[in-house]
Amino acid sequence: MPAAEDFLKIDYTGVMRGEHHAQGWTEEDLSALESGLNAAQNALEERRKTGGLDFSLLLGEMSEEAAEIRAFADSLRDKIDNFVVLGIGGSALGPQAVHLALNPYYFNELPVQKRRRPRLYVLDNIDPSRFAHLLDMLDLHKTVFNVITKSGSTSETMAQFLIVREKLRQVCGADYPNHIVVTTDQEKGNLLPIARKEGYHCFVIPAGVGGRFSELTPVGLLPAAVCGIDIGELLAGALAMDRRIRESRGITVNPAQLMAGTSHLAWRQGKNISVFMPYADSLKIMADWYAQLWAESLGKRLNREGREVWLGQTPVKALGVTDQHSQVQLYAEGPDDKMFTFVSVERLHPDVPIPTDESLPESVRFLGGHTLGELLAAEERATEYALTLAGRLHRRIILPEVNPYYLGQLLLLLEWETAYMGELLNINAFDQPGVEEGKRGTYALMGRPGFEEKRGAIEGMGEGRYIV
Amino acid sequence: MPAAEDFLKIDYTGVMRGEHHAQGWTEEDLSALESGLNAAQNALEERRKTGGLDFSLLLGEMSEEAAEIRAFADSLRDKIDNFVVLGIGGSALGPQAVHLALNPYYFNELPVQKRRRPRLYVLDNIDPSRFAHLLDMLDLHKTVFNVITKSGSTSETMAQFLIVREKLRQVCGADYPNHIVVTTDQEKGNLLPIARKEGYHCFVIPAGVGGRFSELTPVGLLPAAVCGIDIGELLAGALAMDRRIRESRGITVNPAQLMAGTSHLAWRQGKNISVFMPYADSLKIMADWYAQLWAESLGKRLNREGREVWLGQTPVKALGVTDQHSQVQLYAEGPDDKMFTFVSVERLHPDVPIPTDESLPESVRFLGGHTLGELLAAEERATEYALTLAGRLHRRIILPEVNPYYLGQLLLLLEWETAYMGELLNINAFDQPGVEEGKRGTYALMGRPGFEEKRGAIEGMGEGRYIV
Repeated sequence: MPAAEDFLKIDYTGVMRGEHHAQGWTEEDLSALESGLNAAQNALEERRKTGGLDFSLLLGEMSEEAAEIRAFADSLRDKIDNFVVLGIGGSALGPQAVHLALNPYYFNELPVQKRRRPRLYVLDNIDPSRFAHLLDMLDLHKTVFNVITKSGSTSETMAQFLIVREKLRQVCGADYPNHIVVTTDQEKGNLLPIARKEGYHCFVIPAGVGGRFSELTPVGLLPAAVCGIDIGELLAGALAMDRRIRESRGITVNPAQLMAGTSHLAWRQGKNISVFMPYADSLKIMADWYAQLWAESLGKRLNREGREVWLGQTPVKALGVTDQHSQVQLYAEGPDDKMFTFVSVERLHPDVPIPTDESLPESVRFLGGHTLGELLAAEERATEYALTLAGRLHRRIILPEVNPYYLGQLLLLLEWETAYMGELLNINAFDQPGVEEGKRGTYALMGRPGFEEKRGAIEGMGEGRYIV
Repeated sequence: MPAAEDFLKIDYTGVMRGEHHAQGWTEEDLSALESGLNAAQNALEERRKTGGLDFSLLLGEMSEEAAEIRAFADSLRDKIDNFVVLGIGGSALGPQAVHLALNPYYFNELPVQKRRRPRLYVLDNIDPSRFAHLLDMLDLHKTVFNVITKSGSTSETMAQFLIVREKLRQVCGADYPNHIVVTTDQEKGNLLPIARKEGYHCFVIPAGVGGRFSELTPVGLLPAAVCGIDIGELLAGALAMDRRIRESRGITVNPAQLMAGTSHLAWRQGKNISVFMPYADSLKIMADWYAQLWAESLGKRLNREGREVWLGQTPVKALGVTDQHSQVQLYAEGPDDKMFTFVSVERLHPDVPIPTDESLPESVRFLGGHTLGELLAAEERATEYALTLAGRLHRRIILPEVNPYYLGQLLLLLEWETAYMGELLNINAFDQPGVEEGKRGTYALMGRPGFEEKRGAIEGMGEGRYIV
């Protein structure tokens, strides 16, 4: 295992009792969580043996597949200007989060000499205005579309695919299959037969992996590799964290136990909101990725015994320091209904010095001689201080820097935390039965055969009776 | 007043009791809110007379100032390629929200012949990596920076300003003041004397307007005009909604009464979360703008009598249909702790047809012959149906289309709803005392004279004692 200094750290001082933090917990409070956490660890290891935790189980296999993904990505490099992901949910959030984290913020606007890789677009919605605008803007001869849907029956993605396929046929003629890459299930689903018949390049989403746990499969690895991200390092960081979590025990030793234990205790104390607030623009979409992972995994009506429990902490995505000027008023003075997770980065580079100017008024002059990075760190610390004074629970994940290795660790840490929470709450963290009703409603309203009755039910529900 | 069909609509069927919605409210429940709402209306009208509701009071004046703003914006049009807002919080969210709503999604990437206006960047954070990257990317000779800070003492914005000013001096020499435009208070603050001394063009933020209510002042109107948005129409829509709210009475007539009354009843019934979910990519940042407005206005420790109340509903920003694949599992199956506000758009254009292909399997074929817009509308309706079946409270704001007129209406509707909520909760919706502690902490850690004691307190708080 790598040395301790090669891991991200978790500072949980903000949940602990202290001179200024009477509402914090004691070391005994944490110790009391250990037996439950150890039982969860045993149960998760059992599940993993029977193929239930593919996000962890498949890391080795994915490391072997990385070379093939990288080779394909490299083959596109000089041929195309644009790589467009057609996908939604887990097929879209991971690719966007990792790209923003590891590539320059305005990547798509950079000239090709600086970018050296295709632009990345992720069409994660079916808004026709944006869709038409993007298709109109891109030179399709220089564009590859990556259709990502495990089942091949995701309505949004399949609709996008049908539109893009027709457009490509018009513009690129017989060459059009070279402009489509499919990432889908190996055996079942609608997309694979089409892909085989028409000759698209295919990547496989392993059978057991759900969308929100799929970033470190070809779902996320291919777009990352196309944009020049070192996916070997991403997987190495993930593997290191995975091993550390599986091989260590105890809430003050095992980072997933610490994260899940503190989350669970906060939830039991009535914090129905979990705020995830990175202090780096590059981690902004990581908050969206986490929000899906947390909400879809833990928002459940039934527990494992089928009893109605209606559980689930609501994730809130925030960004430091920006949201200090938007949300922190509420965080400090609103109800005590939140657990806060900050993500800090020790080295944001390059740093930018703030010039000195002795002619300025004192209320601004003090900024001179510092750097933007120092100001950002001071604001983060001051916000944590203010939340501590207000008696709020908070913890901090510290990345030495934002690189593929530590990002891989962060992905695995949050996936494991979520899996642990599922155990502690006694629910299935890996399904999503609650989206089925909406899907069936969509089929009905779109006239899919077999759903006529549902259509009548929806149309009869008196929508629109009360309108101002 | 314009005819009813010239207004956005609010469908509140989703909060009302019905055959499938036993948890909904009755018409009597709504009637019971009327006396409180009418009292709030009277109180707000009184406050407005004494200058307390500037977001409404100043609309007329701003309409007169619009010509000057437009003229200045037009004068930049052929001179520059980039317009960069330096601001945070209310100085950043409104400009971004309105720009995304009314200009093409990938505006900055369009060639200048299609864009016909400068690119817009809003630097709403002090992350040094992004800041350095943007300054490096832009041709400063063709760039104007709009420094927006009312007090002139916002640390983040002033730090950005100092860096940009030095850089402009290096690159543009004596011409540098022509690359800075300042939007700030007319009388007080640090920025105005500097601007006057160095000769920057200045726009005024009227005295009483707080950041989150400032979009329809030069804060938002200047960036909008620079990017080609019809600010006259934006203000006309705002004025029409303002008049309608001020001149009508009754919860089923006055849209602000309806919005605030339903929000307040939901809050009283324990919904501590408010989800704002537009079904249009162009309205994505409107959810961020609303989140600031709601959180900072209503998250308050003290009521108007100074009693501790620790109030505030937590806003959650979502996007349809995207978040159906991320958050709706939780919305439907999690705790019943949320009020949902959807925003629909009747005409998203251009719409995009989905091609038919009879060789496809039935589970995909039904999509053909429809349009993306139809699919989006069906999904929205199906989601509302699923939430109704789950007994959740929801309402829907309907915009005929996303244009400046209806967007102006939407801004005013939400501002008035917030003001009403302040009255109903008996708190001051227009201050933000809870961010002061964090600001003082930042001053202390950055070494501002006079804050030495605070610095000792923060550094002595044992941060970092508990680390894994």
